[in-house]
Amino acid sequence: MKISLLVVGDEILLGQVTDSNAARIGQLLFARGLGIAEKLTVGDSLEEIRRGLQYLRERAHVILVSGGLGPTRDDLTQEALAGFAGRRLVENAEAKRDLLALLERRGRPVNEIQLRQCRMPEGAEALPNAMGTAPGTWLEHEDRLFIAMPGVPYELEHMLAYQVLPKLENLPRSGVLLHRTLLTGGIAESDLAARLESWAEGLPPEYQLAYLPALGTVRLRLTATLPEKEQATAGLDAHFEEMAHLVEDVVVARSDMGMEERLGEILLKNKLWLSTAESCTGGSISRSITSVAGASRYYRGGVVSYQNDIKISTLGVPATLLETEGAVSEACVRAMVEGALGAFKADVALSTSGIAGPGGGSPGKPVGTVWLACGDASGIEAKCYHLPWDRRRNIEAATTYSLLLLWNLLRQRGYR
Amino acid sequence: MKISLLVVGDEILLGQVTDSNAARIGQLLFARGLGIAEKLTVGDSLEEIRRGLQYLRERAHVILVSGGLGPTRDDLTQEALAGFAGRRLVENAEAKRDLLALLERRGRPVNEIQLRQCRMPEGAEALPNAMGTAPGTWLEHEDRLFIAMPGVPYELEHMLAYQVLPKLENLPRSGVLLHRTLLTGGIAESDLAARLESWAEGLPPEYQLAYLPALGTVRLRLTATLPEKEQATAGLDAHFEEMAHLVEDVVVARSDMGMEERLGEILLKNKLWLSTAESCTGGSISRSITSVAGASRYYRGGVVSYQNDIKISTLGVPATLLETEGAVSEACVRAMVEGALGAFKADVALSTSGIAGPGGGSPGKPVGTVWLACGDASGIEAKCYHLPWDRRRNIEAATTYSLLLLWNLLRQRGYR
Repeated sequence: MKISLLVVGDEILLGQVTDSNAARIGQLLFARGLGIAEKLTVGDSLEEIRRGLQYLRERAHVILVSGGLGPTRDDLTQEALAGFAGRRLVENAEAKRDLLALLERRGRPVNEIQLRQCRMPEGAEALPNAMGTAPGTWLEHEDRLFIAMPGVPYELEHMLAYQVLPKLENLPRSGVLLHRTLLTGGIAESDLAARLESWAEGLPPEYQLAYLPALGTVRLRLTATLPEKEQATAGLDAHFEEMAHLVEDVVVARSDMGMEERLGEILLKNKLWLSTAESCTGGSISRSITSVAGASRYYRGGVVSYQNDIKISTLGVPATLLETEGAVSEACVRAMVEGALGAFKADVALSTSGIAGPGGGSPGKPVGTVWLACGDASGIEAKCYHLPWDRRRNIEAATTYSLLLLWNLLRQRGYR
Repeated sequence: MKISLLVVGDEILLGQVTDSNAARIGQLLFARGLGIAEKLTVGDSLEEIRRGLQYLRERAHVILVSGGLGPTRDDLTQEALAGFAGRRLVENAEAKRDLLALLERRGRPVNEIQLRQCRMPEGAEALPNAMGTAPGTWLEHEDRLFIAMPGVPYELEHMLAYQVLPKLENLPRSGVLLHRTLLTGGIAESDLAARLESWAEGLPPEYQLAYLPALGTVRLRLTATLPEKEQATAGLDAHFEEMAHLVEDVVVARSDMGMEERLGEILLKNKLWLSTAESCTGGSISRSITSVAGASRYYRGGVVSYQNDIKISTLGVPATLLETEGAVSEACVRAMVEGALGAFKADVALSTSGIAGPGGGSPGKPVGTVWLACGDASGIEAKCYHLPWDRRRNIEAATTYSLLLLWNLLRQRGYR
C-alpha cells in the first residue's frame, strides 16, 4: 500500500506559511509503520490540483490531500476532486448536519459561505471535523483512495489521527517500515560518517542509515523495511545497539526525543532544579525547556534581562562589572549564572548575553558575538561563539549551544 | 520562465524535519517577482530523484533541487543528476579547491568522505558554499536549467541569495508576480469572506485574493500577475487600498509584518516600555517579542515565574492570593501584571498563567484553562480561554492571544 500526499496552497509555494502539516502527517503515519512515498505541492488552481491527483494516482494507492477545503473562493480541492473523478459536486447531508450543530454550539449564525464547505464529490463519505468547520472527504475511485483533509494544522492532525488512520490501518499492506533514531551532540556529520561508514556498508539491504544534521547536533536514523513486524523490530534493535556502541561517547539521547526532553529526564532523575537568565536569547531557552510536558518538576523559572539595569536588580550583576566589561562578556554571563542560582534557588543555571543582530555590533564585539555560561555550586563553564547567521538563526544557535553546554556540565558531574 | 522545486530527503517525508527550506526559497523568489510553480518532495533514492527530475522538467524551465549534497552515502543528488543527464560524475576542480581552503581555515583535517562532495555531473558549474562544505551545482541540460543546493537551511539560503538569484534574475521572463498582504486580528475567516467576497468577485482576472488563517489572525493576500512591473505595482496598490478600507477596523498590520513586529512599531513610536510575566507560556511571549530586530528599544525584559514562590519573590504576587485563588486565576494574572509593571519599570505589561497540559488539570480548572492579562497604569484587562489542543498548540495560542490582547489595549488607549 503506497501512500502519497498532495498539499494544496499558494501560501506554501509562496513561502508565506511553512508546511508543518506535511511533517506532522509523516510523523503520525510513521508511528504506525506507514510512510509517505512522495509529496507534491501545488497552488490553488483547479487545473494544478487535478494534474497533481493524476500524477500521484499513477504510483500510489492512497492519495492524501491537505488544504483547499475552507469556505472561501480560493478553496478548490472539492471541486477539483469532483472534476478529476468525473462526479457532480453535491451537498453532503451528514456534513451539513455536523456543521449546523457546531455553529449552534458556538452560538454563531449560519451563512451561505460556511455551507459551501459541505459540498463534495457525489458518493464520497464526509469525515467529521471535530476542531473546525470544514469536513474532510473519503473518496474511493478507480481502485484508488482519495482522502481530503483541511489545511488548518490542528484540524488536520485531529482528523488524521482519529478518523483517517484507524481506517487506513485496517487496509492490507505489503510490509512494515520501522525506524529508531539517536541524537548526537558536538560532533560533525563527516566525523560521525568516518566512524560509522564501514559498519553501515555491512548492513543487510533492508536496513538504511541516515544522518540528519542540525545546529550543533546530528540525529542518526536507522530504518528497516521488512515483511513482518516482529522480525523487523528484533533486527532493528540489534543493529541499533551496534550503532549506538560505535558513537557512545557523543550520544545525547537514544530515542526520538530532543535535547530538551533528554535534559528534562536527567534533571528530574537527579532531582536538580534548573533556572535561566537570558539576554540575547530573549526567552528562547526557557521556551524550549518548558515545551516539555512536566517541566514544572525541574524548572524553577528564569528572567529575560533584556536591559542592563534588570541584570543588576534581578540577578545582582555588579554595575561596575557592566561598566568595565560590558554586558556581552564572560564576567557578565558568569555573574548572571550566580544570580540565577541565588535568585531562583536553583541547583544549576544557564545564562546568555550577546549581539544577535542585525544592529548593536561594535569593532571589538561584532554582531554574532555571544557569551554562554552554565554552572552549579561546584563551578561555572563559559563559552564564547561568533555566530555568522541572521538574527533568527543566531538566537536558535545560541539556544542549542546553551542546551549542549548544560548537557556537558551534567555529564561531567556524573549525572545520567 | 517557470520554476519548480525538487526537495530530496527521507527525513522530510518521515516528518523528522519540517521543510523550512521550501518556505524560505518561496519567500526569496517571491521578493524578486518570481514564483515556484510546484514542489515535489522525494526520498533519498536514485530512482526517485531521477523520476522527480523527469516529472518537473516537463513543465518547468528551471528546476531547483535542495538536499542530498552532503558527504554521506545517503546523499545521492549529484549521482542522480548525472544519471538523469547521461553524464559522468567527476570531481570538480574549483569545488575541490574551495573545500580544501575551507578545511584549512577551519583547521580541520581533509578526509575522503568530505572530498566526495566535490563530485558532480561533467560540464556542470560548481556554486561555492560560503557557509558549509557541500558545493552547489548549476547544470544546463536540454534547454532546462538544473540548480542543486545543499539542504542545510543557512547554507541553502546563502547560496540561493548570493549565487543563484542574481543569475536567475538575468534570465528572460514573461511576466511579473507581485503581492501585498495585510494582517487581521480577532475575526473569523468566514466573517472576513462575507465582507470581502462581492468585492473580490469584481476584481479583474489578473488579481487574486487569498485568506491565510492562523490562530487568532487571518492574513489577506492580494496577488497580481501582469506583464509589466510598474503596471502591476500601481494596480495592486489601488486594489489593496480598497480591500484595506473594507476591513479597516480589524487590520493589525498593512504589510507582510507579523503581529510582534507591528506591536514593536507601536511601542517604539509611542515610547512605551513593555515587560512580561509568563507562567504557562514559559518564555514564548518574550521570545516572540525579542525575535524582532531592535526589540531592546522597547522591551524591558520579563520573568518566567514557573514556580509559585517566584511569582511571590519576583513579582510580589501575595502568597494568600495564591492560596485562596490559585495560580491559574484572574486575580493572579492581574497581580502578575502589576508586579511586572513595578519590578521591571515598564509602561505596559503582559502576564499568563494556565495549564498547558497534558497533566496538571483538575475538575474546576481542566487542562487548557489559561488566564491572560495586559495592563498599564490606567487599568488591566484579563481574559480566560479554554484551549482544546495539545501542549505545544495551547502555548502557541496563549502566546498569540496575549499579543492580540496587547494590541487591543494599545488601540483602546489611542496608540497607533
